[in-house]
Amino acid sequence: MKTRVLVVGYGTIGKRVADAVRAQWDMELVGVCTPRPNHNVLALLRRVSDKIPLVAYDRESEEAFKRAGISTSGLLSELLSSGEVDVVVDASPAGSGAENKRKFYSLASVKVVFQGGEEPEVAELTFSPFFNYSAARGKRYVRVPSCNTTGILRVLNALLRVSSVEEVFVTIVRRAHDLADRKGARLNTLALDGGVPSHHARDVKLVLPVSITTVAVVAPTTLSHFHVARVRFSGSVSREEILDSLSSSPRVVVAGEPFQTSANVAEFYRELRPRGDMYEVAVLESSISVEGGCATLAYIVHQESIVVPENIDAVRALASAAAAWESIRETDRSLGVTSGRLSLSAAREAPRLELRALA
Amino acid sequence: MKTRVLVVGYGTIGKRVADAVRAQWDMELVGVCTPRPNHNVLALLRRVSDKIPLVAYDRESEEAFKRAGISTSGLLSELLSSGEVDVVVDASPAGSGAENKRKFYSLASVKVVFQGGEEPEVAELTFSPFFNYSAARGKRYVRVPSCNTTGILRVLNALLRVSSVEEVFVTIVRRAHDLADRKGARLNTLALDGGVPSHHARDVKLVLPVSITTVAVVAPTTLSHFHVARVRFSGSVSREEILDSLSSSPRVVVAGEPFQTSANVAEFYRELRPRGDMYEVAVLESSISVEGGCATLAYIVHQESIVVPENIDAVRALASAAAAWESIRETDRSLGVTSGRLSLSAAREAPRLELRALA
Amino acid sequence: MKTRVLVVGYGTIGKRVADAVRAQWDMELVGVCTPRPNHNVLALLRRVSDKIPLVAYDRESEEAFKRAGISTSGLLSELLSSGEVDVVVDASPAGSGAENKRKFYSLASVKVVFQGGEEPEVAELTFSPFFNYSAARGKRYVRVPSCNTTGILRVLNALLRVSSVEEVFVTIVRRAHDLADRKGARLNTLALDGGVPSHHARDVKLVLPVSITTVAVVAPTTLSHFHVARVRFSGSVSREEILDSLSSSPRVVVAGEPFQTSANVAEFYRELRPRGDMYEVAVLESSISVEGGCATLAYIVHQESIVVPENIDAVRALASAAAAWESIRETDRSLGVTSGRLSLSAAREAPRLELRALA
Amino acid sequence: MKTRVLVVGYGTIGKRVADAVRAQWDMELVGVCTPRPNHNVLALLRRVSDKIPLVAYDRESEEAFKRAGISTSGLLSELLSSGEVDVVVDASPAGSGAENKRKFYSLASVKVVFQGGEEPEVAELTFSPFFNYSAARGKRYVRVPSCNTTGILRVLNALLRVSSVEEVFVTIVRRAHDLADRKGARLNTLALDGGVPSHHARDVKLVLPVSITTVAVVAPTTLSHFHVARVRFSGSVSREEILDSLSSSPRVVVAGEPFQTSANVAEFYRELRPRGDMYEVAVLESSISVEGGCATLAYIVHQESIVVPENIDAVRALASAAAAWESIRETDRSLGVTSGRLSLSAAREAPRLELRALA
Repeated sequence: MKTRVLVVGYGTIGKRVADAVRAQWDMELVGVCTPRPNHNVLALLRRVSDKIPLVAYDRESEEAFKRAGISTSGLLSELLSSGEVDVVVDASPAGSGAENKRKFYSLASVKVVFQGGEEPEVAELTFSPFFNYSAARGKRYVRVPSCNTTGILRVLNALLRVSSVEEVFVTIVRRAHDLADRKGARLNTLALDGGVPSHHARDVKLVLPVSITTVAVVAPTTLSHFHVARVRFSGSVSREEILDSLSSSPRVVVAGEPFQTSANVAEFYRELRPRGDMYEVAVLESSISVEGGCATLAYIVHQESIVVPENIDAVRALASAAAAWESIRETDRSLGVTSGRLSLSAAREAPRLELRALA
Repeated sequence: MKTRVLVVGYGTIGKRVADAVRAQWDMELVGVCTPRPNHNVLALLRRVSDKIPLVAYDRESEEAFKRAGISTSGLLSELLSSGEVDVVVDASPAGSGAENKRKFYSLASVKVVFQGGEEPEVAELTFSPFFNYSAARGKRYVRVPSCNTTGILRVLNALLRVSSVEEVFVTIVRRAHDLADRKGARLNTLALDGGVPSHHARDVKLVLPVSITTVAVVAPTTLSHFHVARVRFSGSVSREEILDSLSSSPRVVVAGEPFQTSANVAEFYRELRPRGDMYEVAVLESSISVEGGCATLAYIVHQESIVVPENIDAVRALASAAAAWESIRETDRSLGVTSGRLSLSAAREAPRLELRALA
Repeated sequence: MKTRVLVVGYGTIGKRVADAVRAQWDMELVGVCTPRPNHNVLALLRRVSDKIPLVAYDRESEEAFKRAGISTSGLLSELLSSGEVDVVVDASPAGSGAENKRKFYSLASVKVVFQGGEEPEVAELTFSPFFNYSAARGKRYVRVPSCNTTGILRVLNALLRVSSVEEVFVTIVRRAHDLADRKGARLNTLALDGGVPSHHARDVKLVLPVSITTVAVVAPTTLSHFHVARVRFSGSVSREEILDSLSSSPRVVVAGEPFQTSANVAEFYRELRPRGDMYEVAVLESSISVEGGCATLAYIVHQESIVVPENIDAVRALASAAAAWESIRETDRSLGVTSGRLSLSAAREAPRLELRALA
Repeated sequence: MKTRVLVVGYGTIGKRVADAVRAQWDMELVGVCTPRPNHNVLALLRRVSDKIPLVAYDRESEEAFKRAGISTSGLLSELLSSGEVDVVVDASPAGSGAENKRKFYSLASVKVVFQGGEEPEVAELTFSPFFNYSAARGKRYVRVPSCNTTGILRVLNALLRVSSVEEVFVTIVRRAHDLADRKGARLNTLALDGGVPSHHARDVKLVLPVSITTVAVVAPTTLSHFHVARVRFSGSVSREEILDSLSSSPRVVVAGEPFQTSANVAEFYRELRPRGDMYEVAVLESSISVEGGCATLAYIVHQESIVVPENIDAVRALASAAAAWESIRETDRSLGVTSGRLSLSAAREAPRLELRALA
C-alpha cells in the first residue's frame, strides 16, 4: 500500500518535495496545501499533466483562492481528520511548522516531517538517513535539518569512512536569499550571520557526535552556499583515500575541470534537471588538500533542492518497512541522484542522468 | 523531406537551438559543432537520450576532444562538403560567425542563419518572421537580430496592430552577463553601453521602417533584460486596445499580479520549462499606461532563449515551402510558446503548457 | 544674525545637511537630534573637532543614549519650545516627518524643511531654488523633493534655457538601497518600482508646469541612480546648444572621457570630497544626442548628497533676506559645488575643488 | 634630511601611498609616475592644494599626457638617474613591478618597495614592520605583502602575544574587484580562487614561521575582504586574553555593536577618513570564540588602504635610522591609525580621530 503524503507549504522546498513524492512508486501525493495563491501556485496550474489537489490552509485561505478563481479541495483540518493522510511533509516558512503542529497535526492522526527552519524541539528526532534512519521508526515527528547541515552530514558520512574524525571546522559562505525572494538581502555586503559557532554545528551534533565548529558569512549571491571545511582526522590519511571515499559516497559528486564556481556548476545542472536542481553536494576537486592528519575541502550546497532526497527518506523511515539502504537507493534511483566524479576527464565514464520533466 | 540542420557553436544559444531543432517534425539535427569541450558539452554527454553527433571544429579541436576522452564525428569542413547539411545555424561567439563564413560556409553548399552578434553585412537579410519572412526565400545568408531587438520587434508587431507608430524610444536595462559567463561584468555598477542611439535601433530599422531611438544601460544582474518603451502613435489609442493587442499577439505574454520583477518571472518559468527558458516577451501589465497618443510599457526579455523561435523560423524560411504563419504556428506549438495573460486573476483561463524535458 | 538650524534625523541626509549647515557663514548648527545611537552617531563622537550638541528625540531616546554612555543635551520638545531654533531640517525616515510635524513642530514657533520622502501635503510648498525660491518667503513649511526629482529639475533648468519643452520622458534606474542599508534590496533582480508614471513626475509638476512621464526600475546597485531622459522641445535645438547649456548650469557637470559608469564617477568624487559626495548631477557627455526637436541624455544622480545644496537654499529661503541667486552662489561656494565639464580633455581648464575635511 | 620618495603607479594603492608620504615629516614626495591619464589623475589635477609633480612613465606616456593637455615633469628614467630619489614605492599593476625593476630600478641608485602583487623573488625581503623591520636595513628591494596577508599578519601579531600558535587556518572571502575596476568580476557567483592552500599562506610564512593553511573564495562584492580564522594555540587561552590582546595591538580594532557587516563598517570609516580608508583590521567582536586551545574569529580587511601604513614603514626601514617601534608609532600618528575597541558601548572612551582632508 502506498504511503499517502500531504505537503504543507508550497514554496521553494514544498514544490520540490511534492514532485519528488510523485516520483516514488511507494508514495502517493494526496495534495498540496498553501495559504495563498502566488507564482508557484500559478505555475502549478499551468502544468498540463498536473492533477494535484490544492488544499486550502483555512477558511481565509479558501476565500483567497476563490477570489483568484482557483478551486480548492477542502480544508487542511478536514483532510487531516479524514484519515486519508499518513505523513505530512511540512515545508512552511521557518517557525510556522511549530504553529501548524499545535493547530493541526497534534489534533490528527498523522506523522510529520518538519524542516530545519523549525527548532529541534518540534520533533522527536533530527533525522539523517545516513546516521539515524532506523531511530525514526515508531516516531511521530521528525525533522530534516537545513540545507547547510545536510551538506555537512553528507561530507562527513564520506570522510568517516576513511578514518575517525577529531575535529571539524566549517566556514559557511551563505547565499543571502533564493532567486525570487528578498529576505536577508543586502547588496554588495558580507555579513557575519549570527554568533560563533553558528547553529549548524548544533544541528550536526544532534545527528552525529563530533567536535564541530561552524561560522556563517552571508554573501550577496542567490545561487548556492559555498563551504570551506577543515577536518582533523585521528590518524593519518591520504588525499587519494579522501578523494576515493568522496567519489563513492551517496549524494556527493566530486567536480573537477571545468567546475570552479557556483555559477558554472549551476548552469551544468540547469541543463540536466527541471529547475536546475542539484541534489548532490558538489565537492570541488581542486580544493581537496591533505597535510598531516588534516583535510581541507570546499563544496557547493544547493539550498533549494539538497534536502529533497532526505525528506523522501524521512517519509519512508516514518511510514514504511524499508531499510535505510533500500530507501536511499530507491530515492536516488527515482530522482536520478548521482554520485562519483564530474569532470571533462571523467566525461565518458560517468553515469548518465535520465532526464525527466516535471510531469 | 526533413531539413538537415547543423548547429555551430554550443553555448547559450547553440544548445537551445539544437534542442529546438530536434522538437521540429520537419527538421533533423545533423550534429553540433564546437571547438572545445566545456561544461555544456559535459552536460550533453550526461543526457541519457542524447544521440547528437559532436562535430569537431578543426583538427586542433578534434585533438582537444580526444584528450578529454570524447569521440567526435568528423570535422566541420568534411561535414559541410559532404552535402549532408542543408542549413547551418551559426551560434558561435560574436564575430566568429563572419570568420566561419569565410573559412567554411562560403566554400560549401549550405544556407546559414547567423545571430545578432554578427554585423548585419554578414547576411543578405536581417530576419523577422513577423515582418520579412518571405524575403528570406532564395537567400543564402540571413541573420536573426539579438535578443533585445527581437523583443522590441515583437512588441512593435503587437502595437502596430493598434495604430501606426510615429516614434519609439526604448531604454534597455541590460543584464551584464549570463549565468556562468563573466564578460561584461562590473559589480555594483550601472554603465552606459555604447553611444546613443545604441545599435538596437539600427537593427530594428533593418527590419521595420520606424523612427526609433534606443539607449542601453548595463545593470549588474544575470537574469534578463528589462526594457522601458515609450511609443507615440499617429492617432489616439486606448489602454484597452494596447492591452488587447499585446494579449493576443504571438510570443508575447502580459504578466499581471504577482509579476513585478525579473526574478519572480524567472522563477515562474523555471517551474515550467527546461533551463527556465522564457521564449515570450513578458510585458508587465501594471506598466502599461496611455496618455494622449503615447503608450508607456515595460517588459522583460530573456536573453538566453528569446531568439530560439525566431531561429527555427529562419531555418524554415530558408529551406522549406511553409508560409510565415505556418512556421510561426508550428514553432510555437512544438516549443510550447504561449501568448495571452499571465496572472493569478487569469489563472484558470490561461492555456496550459505541455511540459517536456530535454529529450 | 545667523539662522539657528536644528537637524532632526541623523542618517544619510541628516548627517550631510548638518555638515553643510556648519559650512555656512550665515547659519549656526544648534544641534542634531536622533532617536537612537547607531554607527552614524558613533562616527560623530569619534570626530575630533566635533562640538555638535546631540539632542534626544524623547525620554526613551534619552535613556537609550544614556545606556550607551553617551550624554545628550536635552529633549527635542524642550529645545523647540526654548525659542533657540529658527529652522528645523527634518531628515527623518520617510513618513516620520509628518509625525514629527504633528507631535513637535506644529506646537513650536519654528519653520521646517521636510524631505521628499514625505507626502507633498506635509508642506506649503515643494521647493526648488531654481524655480520657486521666492515663493518660500513667509511660508512655514517647505519640502525639498527627493534626489531623483532634484536631478530632473536641475537638468530641466539647463534645458529650458535652450528652448521651451513640450514633453519629457525619464526612465529612472534606481539604486536599490544605500551602502549600509538593506531596505529595498533584492539581489540580481530588476523590478518595476510602483506604477507608471512613478511619483517623480508628480513631484516635478509641483515645481514646474511641464508634461512629464517617469518610470522607475530598481537595479541591484548601491552607488547612485542613473536616468535616461528624452526631451521634446517646442522648436529645433542643436547638440551644441544643449551641451553648452548643461556645461554652464549650476550643479550640473558634463562628464566626458573616461566617465561612463556610476563606479568610476563615484571613485572620482571619493578622491575629492568627504564621504565621496557628489552634489552635482553628472550628465554623460557621450549620451547627449539630438535629432529633430528631441534630445536624449543620460545622467547620474547621487542619492546620498544631491539634495544637500537644495536643503541649504531652503533654509535661506525660509529665514533670510538673501535672493535666490545669492543663496545658490553662496551654497555652491561654501560646499565647493562645481559645474562645467569633467573630462581628461578639459582637465586643465576645469575649476579646482578646494578640498575640505569634515571639520 | 627627508627621504625623497617617488610613487610609481597611481591607482588604488599608489594614490593612497602618495598622500601618506606627504603626511610624514621625514619624507618628501618627489612625484608620482603613471603611464596614462585616467580618472585618478584627473582627480589629482582637480585638487586645489596639489603641487605634486607628474612624472611620465616613458615617451609614449608623455605624449598621452600632452594630448590630454596635461604637462608632465620629465621621464621616469631621467628622474631616477638624477639622484633625486631615495626610495621608489612601486604600486604598479601586479607583475609590472618586476618589469619596472628590470627596465628602470636596477639601472639606477634607488631602493624600492614593491607590492604583494609581485612574486616574492622580486625583492630580498617580504616585509612586515611587526616581524622583520630591522632585516630591511641594508636591503635594496623589499616587498610589502598583499592586503589579505597584511591582515593575517596583524592578527597573528596580536594573538602571538597571548600564546604560541600551533596551527592557523583562514578562509578568505575575497572581494572580487575594487569600486571602479572590473577585473575578476563575476556577478552572483562564488568561486574558489586558485588552489588550496592559496598563496596567502606562503606569504605569511615568508615573514613568520607558522603552520598556516589558507583558502580563498571570491564573492561578488567590492567593499572589502572578510576572513574567518581558526587558530590553535599551544596552551590554553581565554576569550578575555584574546580580546585584550586584539584591543591593544597596533592597527587592529575590535568592532562590537552595531558592526556586523562589511557595509556598516565601510560607512563608518567613510564618515571619518578621506576615501573611506580603513587602515585597521576590524575584528568582529561577536565572532571571537574560544574553546579549549582554539580561537575562532572573523575580521574585515580593507583591500584599498590596509597596506598603506606598512608601505610607509617599509620606506623608513630602507632609508632611515628609525627603529621599528618609532616607525610604527610615527606612521600611525601621522595617518591617524587607531586601535582599541569600536562600539557604541565604548563610544566615549575611544580615542578620537583627527580628521584630515586630502590636502
